[in-house]
Amino acid sequence: MSFEPQKINGKFKGKDIVSLDQFSPKDIDILFKLAKKMKVVAANGKPSQILDGKIVTLIFYEPSSRTFGSFGASVKQLGGQTVDILNPQVFSSVSKGETLEDTIRVFEAYSDAIVIRHPVAGTAKIAAEVAKFVPIINAGDGIGEHPTQTLLDLCTIQEKEGKLDNLTGVMVGDLLNGRTVHSLLKGLSLYKNNTVYLLSPKELKLSKQDFQNYSSQGVKLIEISKQEEMPKNADFWYWTRVQKERLQPKSLKNYENLKTRFIVTKDLIDKKAGKKTIIMHPLPRVGEIDPEIDSDPRAVYLSSQVRNGMYIRMALLSLVITGK
Amino acid sequence: MSFEPQKINGKFKGKDIVSLDQFSPKDIDILFKLAKKMKVVAANGKPSQILDGKIVTLIFYEPSSRTFGSFGASVKQLGGQTVDILNPQVFSSVSKGETLEDTIRVFEAYSDAIVIRHPVAGTAKIAAEVAKFVPIINAGDGIGEHPTQTLLDLCTIQEKEGKLDNLTGVMVGDLLNGRTVHSLLKGLSLYKNNTVYLLSPKELKLSKQDFQNYSSQGVKLIEISKQEEMPKNADFWYWTRVQKERLQPKSLKNYENLKTRFIVTKDLIDKKAGKKTIIMHPLPRVGEIDPEIDSDPRAVYLSSQVRNGMYIRMALLSLVITGK
Amino acid sequence: MSFEPQKINGKFKGKDIVSLDQFSPKDIDILFKLAKKMKVVAANGKPSQILDGKIVTLIFYEPSSRTFGSFGASVKQLGGQTVDILNPQVFSSVSKGETLEDTIRVFEAYSDAIVIRHPVAGTAKIAAEVAKFVPIINAGDGIGEHPTQTLLDLCTIQEKEGKLDNLTGVMVGDLLNGRTVHSLLKGLSLYKNNTVYLLSPKELKLSKQDFQNYSSQGVKLIEISKQEEMPKNADFWYWTRVQKERLQPKSLKNYENLKTRFIVTKDLIDKKAGKKTIIMHPLPRVGEIDPEIDSDPRAVYLSSQVRNGMYIRMALLSLVITGK
Repeated sequence: MSFEPQKINGKFKGKDIVSLDQFSPKDIDILFKLAKKMKVVAANGKPSQILDGKIVTLIFYEPSSRTFGSFGASVKQLGGQTVDILNPQVFSSVSKGETLEDTIRVFEAYSDAIVIRHPVAGTAKIAAEVAKFVPIINAGDGIGEHPTQTLLDLCTIQEKEGKLDNLTGVMVGDLLNGRTVHSLLKGLSLYKNNTVYLLSPKELKLSKQDFQNYSSQGVKLIEISKQEEMPKNADFWYWTRVQKERLQPKSLKNYENLKTRFIVTKDLIDKKAGKKTIIMHPLPRVGEIDPEIDSDPRAVYLSSQVRNGMYIRMALLSLVITGK
Repeated sequence: MSFEPQKINGKFKGKDIVSLDQFSPKDIDILFKLAKKMKVVAANGKPSQILDGKIVTLIFYEPSSRTFGSFGASVKQLGGQTVDILNPQVFSSVSKGETLEDTIRVFEAYSDAIVIRHPVAGTAKIAAEVAKFVPIINAGDGIGEHPTQTLLDLCTIQEKEGKLDNLTGVMVGDLLNGRTVHSLLKGLSLYKNNTVYLLSPKELKLSKQDFQNYSSQGVKLIEISKQEEMPKNADFWYWTRVQKERLQPKSLKNYENLKTRFIVTKDLIDKKAGKKTIIMHPLPRVGEIDPEIDSDPRAVYLSSQVRNGMYIRMALLSLVITGK
Repeated sequence: MSFEPQKINGKFKGKDIVSLDQFSPKDIDILFKLAKKMKVVAANGKPSQILDGKIVTLIFYEPSSRTFGSFGASVKQLGGQTVDILNPQVFSSVSKGETLEDTIRVFEAYSDAIVIRHPVAGTAKIAAEVAKFVPIINAGDGIGEHPTQTLLDLCTIQEKEGKLDNLTGVMVGDLLNGRTVHSLLKGLSLYKNNTVYLLSPKELKLSKQDFQNYSSQGVKLIEISKQEEMPKNADFWYWTRVQKERLQPKSLKNYENLKTRFIVTKDLIDKKAGKKTIIMHPLPRVGEIDPEIDSDPRAVYLSSQVRNGMYIRMALLSLVITGK
């Protein structure tokens, strides 16, 4: 795709970012190079003015402090300002029966871009179709997409391993419901020769259909059921939380047990990790990683992943608002 | 009135904006000329610095995403920043029994202006009397006043029709309770030779007293009861929502029926609208206007009205804070 | 202490401000001189750029509009921006079981400083230990500390009386539970020859242990039980609210009576106050001070105290973020 604003009905509109599916490896490369540049600029401490005078509206129908904070900081790091609209379904015209379409049309009149978070899959796409003048960025729509999360995961792997192909990884936890797992598998399938070991309780295995889908897209998938079967020296471990709120009733009874079935400990790292293995987690974690690991330089979940989240969002905002 | 800061007890204080009643046609003219200038400046894309270093506190006792977003964007478009205080009655000293007076006195110490929204009519006036150093702007106080809404309505008519006198308009919907309708009638009464057709269910007609009031102020009012009786080629249609929350119990039973008694459809436009007729609505709408109309250039509710709301607020903030 | 950033594990980190106990008279002197300078700069109206490009995250687990607004305005007065995280325990990963440690680690990746408010005493200290790169400022942690409140109280006394030693004051209200009272006593104990008269209902007297503690730290304490016993011409009166939410069950029954046992009236001022006596209150007040007093130049609770709160916070933010 092109990040350039596009002419629609005679008017220029910045590129909407709704799904990871929009990105080719070349797009990702452009984005990561810009994110890296932003990191360097931020490090030298001189305030950026890229979004000086620009306003980004953050509409969060389902507040999420982490994503909200990351997008907010990204806008402000670039010298822009935000208008923060939290829970409009409770606090506004939406509660009087206004449609999403009208809400988006109103806020685009005030904004240079709109970042939207919504509990219902597909909402970001609808918002993008409705917005006439300003780009929409999806900050997560339910079980749908959360493209910037996957981009920051890929960016972290690229940064630490120097490549996005010929990788061996392990994905662990709730592989049935985990949105981040699915999106990262999609992302990895854009590159050649990637192998992913899948480790989960049998109730939370990737569905047969998803297994076939991602396999056919080119990622080699290998299911394992015990930590002992993990390969040595993988390039990355991608651990995830068992999401209580997404469990089927019969698995829910078993939650306490499922939650801590697989845990990253110092012992596991000593046995299975290599010098360059990175330990990733999309956060929040609720016991899957022993905090003792946090200070290990290979643990990137509280450091590189979080920081890359901001640089990715800064780069994306810059691209869709200014076209460069 | 003068928009200049005034000396009170030896100290200069910016002009409070509490009610539409403060405005003469000359004041409105000054405001609209500045709003137009701001629109031009915004269009050329160079960030404004008019409110550089200034802080506007937005105190919303009754959150309203639309008005909150519009004021916030206005401050930021001018290079200022906001301090956002939402629901202080829940989250703060107010819940411990603090008076409005103390709250205002505290926040004015941090601010260059305070924008207040409150569910109780008359609150903005009290706040204005209490504030010693900084101007208060009324962003709606219950069934009281919401002056910037009326100013943006007038501004849109002026922009599209080139005048505010010798107009013929139609106002439709809940004319009994609609605050925006009443304020716009007041606004139109400042100019000569305006005629307004009033179309509403009989339960929601303008009260006899209001009818006499506005008539005596100089607007010619004509009550009609069917869409068929609407004049052809009116200058503006001002459609409004039947506000469920304001209905009398006996009308409430009839809400579903009242809600959609009068609807703007393509057919109605073909029959009654002229080339220059503009279709207005204060929003939110919940079915009174067929979305098919949205792309008609005469439909201004999602475009000119929303955008003029921001430019009017920018102009007003600039006037009361900087005096120019 | 030194306000300079300190090297921790090879990385520089700004000074955490957790407790008043960190401050020596010399530190307080540095802070107050800078606060005064900021006041002068603010008065001349030229926007400050000290925090240009800096982001301060305000994490309020227990919203408090006043403190939130004061810190927010302080950051913005210096040209910085804030990321506002309100009630993360409801709206975010915290509700999914995330630890405070992880939350702080995530937000420090986006921020140049973190201001934290939390209902549990000791939380700010934990946050400070966890944060690796950016300074933590305590904006109140339950019955624990609220250092900037005490600093603004001291700053106001210094400003009005020209000194912090050889003072005679009166503290009134809930001396048993009042956090601000305890902290101010601590602050005054850093200076020589201060005498404080303690006036409270007997249910709300300073505990024996606290009385001994503060006495041994060097403040001379004198308990009185009637307004008639107040000394004439004290340097300051520090009135406080009876905090309903902190009362023991047996005192709670008596709340209405306790609440208004001692009240500042014009009559009391005529009888007991001198020309230079200042009337202080940490706010909110709920009846302890007759509003008729507000316009007396000796009443500083709605003026100097509130404004000094902002200048103190500006100075502190500048010191811990920029080191000067």
